[in-house]
Amino acid sequence: MNIFDAIRKRRSIRSYQDKAVTDELLTKILEAGRQAPSASNRQEWRFVVVRNKKIREALCKAAKNQPFVKEAPVIIACCAKTDNHVMTCGQPCYPIDVAAAIDHMTLAAVELGLGTCWIGAFHEDEVKNILSVPDDIRVVELLALGYPVSESTSFKERLPLEDIVFFEKWGSSYHSK
Amino acid sequence: MNIFDAIRKRRSIRSYQDKAVTDELLTKILEAGRQAPSASNRQEWRFVVVRNKKIREALCKAAKNQPFVKEAPVIIACCAKTDNHVMTCGQPCYPIDVAAAIDHMTLAAVELGLGTCWIGAFHEDEVKNILSVPDDIRVVELLALGYPVSESTSFKERLPLEDIVFFEKWGSSYHSK
Repeated sequence: MNIFDAIRKRRSIRSYQDKAVTDELLTKILEAGRQAPSASNRQEWRFVVVRNKKIREALCKAAKNQPFVKEAPVIIACCAKTDNHVMTCGQPCYPIDVAAAIDHMTLAAVELGLGTCWIGAFHEDEVKNILSVPDDIRVVELLALGYPVSESTSFKERLPLEDIVFFEKWGSSYHSK
Repeated sequence: MNIFDAIRKRRSIRSYQDKAVTDELLTKILEAGRQAPSASNRQEWRFVVVRNKKIREALCKAAKNQPFVKEAPVIIACCAKTDNHVMTCGQPCYPIDVAAAIDHMTLAAVELGLGTCWIGAFHEDEVKNILSVPDDIRVVELLALGYPVSESTSFKERLPLEDIVFFEKWGSSYHSK
């Protein structure tokens, strides 16, 4: 499928089949993340791939007991080995760069018939403890990965383009140009 | 092309043809951004699309005079209308959510034969002044968009998967499992 189909089909999946993701598919997904762009090619992203059930159960507890966190056959802890570099615009690089890698992986997953869900609702200190993540590493997001139970998860409404796009200047309507 | 081809072909383009991007293609790209996921579907992203040459020249100055910023026929100022909500994991939502939208747009551009470049090297206060962006809005990135001069821009080396992926725990080699 082309990129527009993948974007249209992507959903945040919170219910997974009890079906393993093969090493082959997992590697394709990680490869997609690896090829993402990053500020000055810093590649601060690091991924801890968790399949072990007991560890997933512990992560689930650290993620406010959201049931799909232990249901998903794979959780990828998306970390950053960051030097806390801040871009001229004032934003730290690492959350943006890790997000680009995650976004790549979520779209790659759609192509492979897999579902994902970005998870920001977790206690970072607990996740770091569970996965032995060093003090100086940040865990930016958890990513659930697996086969969706349903193919028909509804798409959450989005604001129309008119509400989010301006032309030439803030406040100038995109469609009245 | 499928998502893996788009990921493989994407480059950070810093040299653009003097060729306009049609409204139709631009809308497709913005649509791709609009459909990105965001924490609790907050959709904090806002986009200011700049085609006006004088404004692009001003943005170029604000972006450390990187020549491609005025060469590119379109600059999209990727902003956030943020309430500064912080996720349980400790990360503010808005840079990550805006990054997901940008990443969607960069891959959509590849499908359409267009090139992009994420730009974080700009003075936010100057860009806000040029585009009349309100005080409470953040400009997270500028995105250059247009037709690449060359199709053969080299791919920057990436760290191998072995260096960025661990299995079950931080430090456990992915390929020795």
